[in-house]
Amino acid sequence: MLRQKRAQKILKKMFSLLHSSDKGRRGTLETPHGTLETPFFMPIATKGAVKTLSSQDMENIGSPIILSNTYHLWLRPGLELMKEFGGLHRLMDWKGAILTDSGGFQVFSLSGLRKLSEEGVQFQSHIDGAKLMLTPELCMQIQRAIGSDIVMVLDVCTELPATQKSLEKALTLTTRWAKRSKEEFERTKAESVNPGAKLFGIIQGGTDIELRKRSAQELIDIGFDGYAIGGLSVGEPFEEACKVLEALDPILPIDKPRYFMGGAKPHEIVAYVERGVDMFDCVLPTRNARHGQLYRFVHDDLSKPDFYEAIQITNEKWKHSTEPIVAPAKAEINPIFKELSRYSMGYLRHLFTVDEMLGFRLATMNNVAFYLELIDRIRARV
Amino acid sequence: MLRQKRAQKILKKMFSLLHSSDKGRRGTLETPHGTLETPFFMPIATKGAVKTLSSQDMENIGSPIILSNTYHLWLRPGLELMKEFGGLHRLMDWKGAILTDSGGFQVFSLSGLRKLSEEGVQFQSHIDGAKLMLTPELCMQIQRAIGSDIVMVLDVCTELPATQKSLEKALTLTTRWAKRSKEEFERTKAESVNPGAKLFGIIQGGTDIELRKRSAQELIDIGFDGYAIGGLSVGEPFEEACKVLEALDPILPIDKPRYFMGGAKPHEIVAYVERGVDMFDCVLPTRNARHGQLYRFVHDDLSKPDFYEAIQITNEKWKHSTEPIVAPAKAEINPIFKELSRYSMGYLRHLFTVDEMLGFRLATMNNVAFYLELIDRIRARV
Repeated sequence: MLRQKRAQKILKKMFSLLHSSDKGRRGTLETPHGTLETPFFMPIATKGAVKTLSSQDMENIGSPIILSNTYHLWLRPGLELMKEFGGLHRLMDWKGAILTDSGGFQVFSLSGLRKLSEEGVQFQSHIDGAKLMLTPELCMQIQRAIGSDIVMVLDVCTELPATQKSLEKALTLTTRWAKRSKEEFERTKAESVNPGAKLFGIIQGGTDIELRKRSAQELIDIGFDGYAIGGLSVGEPFEEACKVLEALDPILPIDKPRYFMGGAKPHEIVAYVERGVDMFDCVLPTRNARHGQLYRFVHDDLSKPDFYEAIQITNEKWKHSTEPIVAPAKAEINPIFKELSRYSMGYLRHLFTVDEMLGFRLATMNNVAFYLELIDRIRARV
Repeated sequence: MLRQKRAQKILKKMFSLLHSSDKGRRGTLETPHGTLETPFFMPIATKGAVKTLSSQDMENIGSPIILSNTYHLWLRPGLELMKEFGGLHRLMDWKGAILTDSGGFQVFSLSGLRKLSEEGVQFQSHIDGAKLMLTPELCMQIQRAIGSDIVMVLDVCTELPATQKSLEKALTLTTRWAKRSKEEFERTKAESVNPGAKLFGIIQGGTDIELRKRSAQELIDIGFDGYAIGGLSVGEPFEEACKVLEALDPILPIDKPRYFMGGAKPHEIVAYVERGVDMFDCVLPTRNARHGQLYRFVHDDLSKPDFYEAIQITNEKWKHSTEPIVAPAKAEINPIFKELSRYSMGYLRHLFTVDEMLGFRLATMNNVAFYLELIDRIRARV
């Protein structure tokens, strides 16, 4: 009986597409730490915590998954300590799913003196200047130690604008690294704290449609559990990102999840889901919270890009406001909404004015909850 | 029936001394926002929030009272806005009691260009350099607008070491200001959002026993709802503070609460309670938390000053620790202990190492909970 159940579990597809329309795709994604309904949004816990929030808070807010970062966790607490603690789930006491970005983007954007070679990328730590070498294989070993549920291959990131030649060169190396990543991912399965993890490839190619198609096809030929679209959200116009997604839609396997990497404003997420994307992360809800920007719904029609606003709580306008941060009607949805419904916009403004950390925390709660509610609403309309 | 109940409430004494021994005094203090068991400890919410914690958190942690600051709230959000919001209880949505320090200490320590006169103290705001004048009367008006349950008179603070002459001069003016404070406090009762508030006098006189006695007697002659011992915890040896308390004990009315103002280490609180003190505030649990210092009980015998330790979480020692921040046995006491029992010391150290605000928050929770548990233990042994 037990064996039968286990067999069913194994036979169950990792990703099940339940419905598809011009509003997007709806499905479920199986992970060793829960079944996630797609599309979903991943709050960012770069260094092992969503800024100002705890694992308890993330449970209270109802997030089934968080995103963390291989580069940052490799530097601190480090590979050995991560192994010692038995992975990030245990370190954070987080029971939901974890996706880790490979750290490629951070190596290329944060660290000094990069030297790219066939083997990997040599660089200096942004913390202590130590000389380090990140290879596709090491990247897998680190993510295996972290115990991520969704592991990302190490990719070569190119700063935009870039010449076609440099984009192509990066893409070609990304494909070769992806192949090595997959081999190392499979080799390290048995020794991993989370052997049921899945591996995603990352499509590169900038805004060049032909390069994007080629990158996607090369990764599909290798075969991954899911496909990420990397190298967007780096300053290119929103329309360019849409064009890339539209070009990739018919190429990508319909039975594999698609992950848009990097920042996306609320109305952009709606547009990207309409173009077939299933997974998102974005630093905006947490980062903007710390600058006093609060996301709120204005109306229910997601097809109009003005369905939300990002208000600036430090503005004089909110000084006298007794309006609650979240409408009391939402208080019963979860403990975070309940808490936010207690405090006024005027109080939140006061906290920002006097630099109380509680202000950052309440604003972060509001924004993460907003993005999670947004993706719920988007899922409901597919 | 309702009238009868109200009459009973009025007749009920504000402070009831239930028991007194060489271990201290145990009693109850009635406030418009709850009956508090004495001795009690007040976490500091200087600017309208206990650093990193919300009113919800303070409820969860089980604190019946918080302390806020007249000077800081006067500057921001300001008197008019405080009135508009109907007081600090409403602004914070805090249902427990509030004591406000008069701001005398802050005027004398934070602001520039002070000019002391019979009328009050003229100074420059530490925020924008604005020239302001704080008088005993204005100080009452601000605290009435804040809606404090326990209002403190404006006192003249003297930096130590000080000559006997300057101590005496400060004391004499403090007494005259105390008299004016009481008159203004009574005059503003009817218009206040919290007419049931109580007024405390502040005993000055440095470590000069005769001056202390004189100050206490002058305030007793005016008559207050409680008596605070100010001007200690400013660098004098602990033994000197004890001597002042011992000298005041026989003078102070037994049926009025006694409040030790300012910092006190855990073992000092034990000693001060033994010397008749009923109320405490202290910045150490919150401030030290931000520097990675965590208070913990070592053993149960409060008569030995080594009953606690303050560990430095950033030390290498805690790097590998899987020990929970709070023992799982305490998880059922309140939601804060429950949350703290989930995370390891190693995780907390990691959060401090990578500068995650969550680290400050967890450490603050731990330390505030420690001080509240400490005062519970002290109360139990009286």
